[in-house]
Amino acid sequence: MPLSNADRLESEALRGAAQPTLRAVSPGAEGHLYVPHPVLDHGMVRLIDYMGDDAAIVQAARVSYGRGTKSVQDDAGLIRYLMRHWHSTPFEMCEIKLHVKLPVFVARQWIRHRTANVNEYSARYSILDREFYIPAPEHLAAQSKVNNQGRGEVLGAEEAARVLDILKGDAMRAYDHYEAMISQDGQQGLARELARMNLPANIYTQWYWKVDLHNLFHFLQLRADAHAQYEIRVYAECIARVVKDWVPAAFAAWEDYRLGGVTVSAKGVACLKRMLAGEAVTQETSGMSKGEWREFMGVWGG
Amino acid sequence: MPLSNADRLESEALRGAAQPTLRAVSPGAEGHLYVPHPVLDHGMVRLIDYMGDDAAIVQAARVSYGRGTKSVQDDAGLIRYLMRHWHSTPFEMCEIKLHVKLPVFVARQWIRHRTANVNEYSARYSILDREFYIPAPEHLAAQSKVNNQGRGEVLGAEEAARVLDILKGDAMRAYDHYEAMISQDGQQGLARELARMNLPANIYTQWYWKVDLHNLFHFLQLRADAHAQYEIRVYAECIARVVKDWVPAAFAAWEDYRLGGVTVSAKGVACLKRMLAGEAVTQETSGMSKGEWREFMGVWGG
Amino acid sequence: MPLSNADRLESEALRGAAQPTLRAVSPGAEGHLYVPHPVLDHGMVRLIDYMGDDAAIVQAARVSYGRGTKSVQDDAGLIRYLMRHWHSTPFEMCEIKLHVKLPVFVARQWIRHRTANVNEYSARYSILDREFYIPAPEHLAAQSKVNNQGRGEVLGAEEAARVLDILKGDAMRAYDHYEAMISQDGQQGLARELARMNLPANIYTQWYWKVDLHNLFHFLQLRADAHAQYEIRVYAECIARVVKDWVPAAFAAWEDYRLGGVTVSAKGVACLKRMLAGEAVTQETSGMSKGEWREFMGVWGG
Amino acid sequence: MPLSNADRLESEALRGAAQPTLRAVSPGAEGHLYVPHPVLDHGMVRLIDYMGDDAAIVQAARVSYGRGTKSVQDDAGLIRYLMRHWHSTPFEMCEIKLHVKLPVFVARQWIRHRTANVNEYSARYSILDREFYIPAPEHLAAQSKVNNQGRGEVLGAEEAARVLDILKGDAMRAYDHYEAMISQDGQQGLARELARMNLPANIYTQWYWKVDLHNLFHFLQLRADAHAQYEIRVYAECIARVVKDWVPAAFAAWEDYRLGGVTVSAKGVACLKRMLAGEAVTQETSGMSKGEWREFMGVWGG
Repeated sequence: MPLSNADRLESEALRGAAQPTLRAVSPGAEGHLYVPHPVLDHGMVRLIDYMGDDAAIVQAARVSYGRGTKSVQDDAGLIRYLMRHWHSTPFEMCEIKLHVKLPVFVARQWIRHRTANVNEYSARYSILDREFYIPAPEHLAAQSKVNNQGRGEVLGAEEAARVLDILKGDAMRAYDHYEAMISQDGQQGLARELARMNLPANIYTQWYWKVDLHNLFHFLQLRADAHAQYEIRVYAECIARVVKDWVPAAFAAWEDYRLGGVTVSAKGVACLKRMLAGEAVTQETSGMSKGEWREFMGVWGG
Repeated sequence: MPLSNADRLESEALRGAAQPTLRAVSPGAEGHLYVPHPVLDHGMVRLIDYMGDDAAIVQAARVSYGRGTKSVQDDAGLIRYLMRHWHSTPFEMCEIKLHVKLPVFVARQWIRHRTANVNEYSARYSILDREFYIPAPEHLAAQSKVNNQGRGEVLGAEEAARVLDILKGDAMRAYDHYEAMISQDGQQGLARELARMNLPANIYTQWYWKVDLHNLFHFLQLRADAHAQYEIRVYAECIARVVKDWVPAAFAAWEDYRLGGVTVSAKGVACLKRMLAGEAVTQETSGMSKGEWREFMGVWGG
Repeated sequence: MPLSNADRLESEALRGAAQPTLRAVSPGAEGHLYVPHPVLDHGMVRLIDYMGDDAAIVQAARVSYGRGTKSVQDDAGLIRYLMRHWHSTPFEMCEIKLHVKLPVFVARQWIRHRTANVNEYSARYSILDREFYIPAPEHLAAQSKVNNQGRGEVLGAEEAARVLDILKGDAMRAYDHYEAMISQDGQQGLARELARMNLPANIYTQWYWKVDLHNLFHFLQLRADAHAQYEIRVYAECIARVVKDWVPAAFAAWEDYRLGGVTVSAKGVACLKRMLAGEAVTQETSGMSKGEWREFMGVWGG
Repeated sequence: MPLSNADRLESEALRGAAQPTLRAVSPGAEGHLYVPHPVLDHGMVRLIDYMGDDAAIVQAARVSYGRGTKSVQDDAGLIRYLMRHWHSTPFEMCEIKLHVKLPVFVARQWIRHRTANVNEYSARYSILDREFYIPAPEHLAAQSKVNNQGRGEVLGAEEAARVLDILKGDAMRAYDHYEAMISQDGQQGLARELARMNLPANIYTQWYWKVDLHNLFHFLQLRADAHAQYEIRVYAECIARVVKDWVPAAFAAWEDYRLGGVTVSAKGVACLKRMLAGEAVTQETSGMSKGEWREFMGVWGG
């Protein structure tokens, strides 16, 4: 499962074998095909295939809206219009297939996005490799004091060292024991589907993941967000860079309207209008709860 | 919306523009790209894009099953194995995008398959063309006497002529009235989103339809079946020919295990075993209802 | 298919038959069960079943977030928190089943929401009733001049009268012909699955529609919106009233954060901050296109 | 997370609080509500809510098929007909919500069934309990020699003891280290979202899982099957018993047509017909591969 020399040679071989096609071709995506992008200490993202490009989004929209769309706007303008008005079906006409290597606890979050196709390495069938995610010291953070679901300050050096000792030691021991249990040397050898239960959640797995562009944007919005756990966010950021090269106009529209966009509640709209009119609004006069007001002022305050 | 000369020229232009790609290429699918395949009197199916080929199915399966799959079987054998054991995820790794022109009453059946992406021509936004499905006389059949949901004998010539007169006359009148209502010549002109309500279900619409191979096989199994309505079956059969050229090994496995396959109930299995052992089983001794026994003997009898 | 006296008696009988249950019960929803709410001229919405209530949303969230959620917030506050932070899975834990009678052209829009379960009346199997949607004169509007996908002014009396004559006449004639074609009186009788193609898109159909609360909110957001076609918006508004009684806290949160909420792009956020700081921003200095700026000022201007 | 006395008291309290409802009520399901059914050493399945019953399936089918279905068949007969002809939408009209406590490696298989709603206990947010699945000695099996994905003979006593020592020791040590890392006693305390990565896949998690009856039957067919891993099969079997009490007619039809049913390929049908006609068919004359013939004879041979 590690990206061995054999894998690298295979990647290079695949990249050498261009063939002619009549399909839509994205030059930016072609540059990524089969190239492994490293993520975390042993993970990676690799583009295996893609369908469509910016023009394919426009083409699908024109089927829906007919001749009217032809003259009015250029492609990027139409794509911005579609994104702004939540017309999501043309974005579903593009599809991407990725090969991802990732720790199991990241895979468990990731799989919650249901509208995608997945082929995961089977630990019932095959033997997992001795590869575990061990965080770099600067990513070993304390539990957040204000947010139940988040990280606070980076651990001090001594505490970080204790944590790393534990993570490394337990991972190695668990894998040694995994190997000992499945070994058929002088014993029957435990079934793989049972032995795997001893392996911790920082072991690496891998899968093929195929998703349409609309659902991928939704995934990126949640997982490239500052509130996402660092270990999945780096995958989202890596994929975002591939998407940017694949469909640059759609990506730019998504960055403006979604990633950098803000949703304001009806109460928030009313407050902002009062503020635009020169009124000094406070939490007490806002109609919002304290937590809500804090979040609101986090965006609009000072 | 009709396939005009302009459309045909566009198809030919698109077919002239091969570009190099590093992605999986299916020579059989390339031969279909952009070529409109006529269906019914004014309909068509046209391959717009595809992702993956037979080898991509195998590649995804090998990610799941690891090294064990490498030596044992050749690709076609592995694909047969996956199909036989309902391992559907590797088939989901292939995707197809079609441009389809079809009568509205066919579109209404089709859309019930939910796991697909669709961009349909919008009659809120644009004006529909004067194109209606008028069945050929040999497809004008009477209501079935044994099956509430089906056709019986072909209509006699005189009755068929009466039916065709009605269908043609009503379609033309409805379209004349549609045009008259939306006309802005000397009047305000009714909104398109309202005027469309006057158009009958045999008017043609069109859409882009994108689906993965597993769900496409499910669609084909239901809609290429002898019990499907003729007017959707011809679309399914046309698509099946495209799929056969695109992923020949997967298609052959599907034909054997699904299209030509038969599901036998537990009661049916017990009966067949008794019959194999030489017993003469009757409906009374089968444990089946009359309807069930009739269907059972339709497969296994005589 | 019409809501006959027999249907009304059935509704009343069903409403008389309360039984004890240990499940979550919503008093507001109980009041709606089986009661047909009229929509348009012959349509209706009728609550058939529901699963869960506001407390069930909280219960599911507490499974996810554990003990931490118990003390901090009351139920309505937690529901607002979930809605504000796009934590959609607890809302998926509620489900609703509706019986809806609606024109076919409305059904064609509705079915595009794929994450739902549907059982529609089959015109292959059964005979449709003579019921057509004929708009009230005040809903007969002209094509919008500024928006390809919308309505403008109401038609003048004379033009409206012409349109109504056409719609009524064509509907009756189409149904007469439908009956004539399927009649087995002195002829074979055309198969129902074929005869239905002559019926226009304003004929009524009906279905059972089952959906979870998260996806229902999404449906309501798109279809109760001012840009939705009037004929589907009245269904959305009717359903919204049922939902408000069923899960009042979730509904209030949805109204504030979604229905009345506004999404601001990154560019829009920058402009608003400049405006809050006292700067007079114009389209030219906004970085937005004209269309975008017009929409932006539609919310925030004057 | 364990089923504490507090939980049991809550279950009993909930079971004491019957209220009247006008909805469909299944007496068999009511008997299961909130009652925890133990599975494995610390797991459980608990029915939280349900929508619909056998009559609701029939009711939905009658909406689709109209008056024709009223006289012909009784409810159980109609349900059998629907199941036999793969008319799945009426079964989607029933829904079930379960509270499940299960080991993480079982949860990872389970979640692959995408058409369901899930709220899982969050180890980012909350602290997992010290509960691990430790197999009973009779379920500690060796790797299968004929099937890469399966178990063979039970381990000998000595080897089993070694395995149990490993599983227990590693689980306790991993949990001790988990507690040590998150402790805020004299140190900052590692963030929960990081500390969880040290926990092995046999730790228990829990979730609410909501699914419609059609998709539940599909889940049960795959997971109550003899080829499914024992540790997920016992959950499927437990759920199957609940479903049998909830919708007895649908369950009986599913048992006959799906669980006990057999799918025969086109090649298999041809062979069976020759065998019924008295011919002695062998692998060589069957047209099947060796593996396929072995499976075929496993069903039909001797």
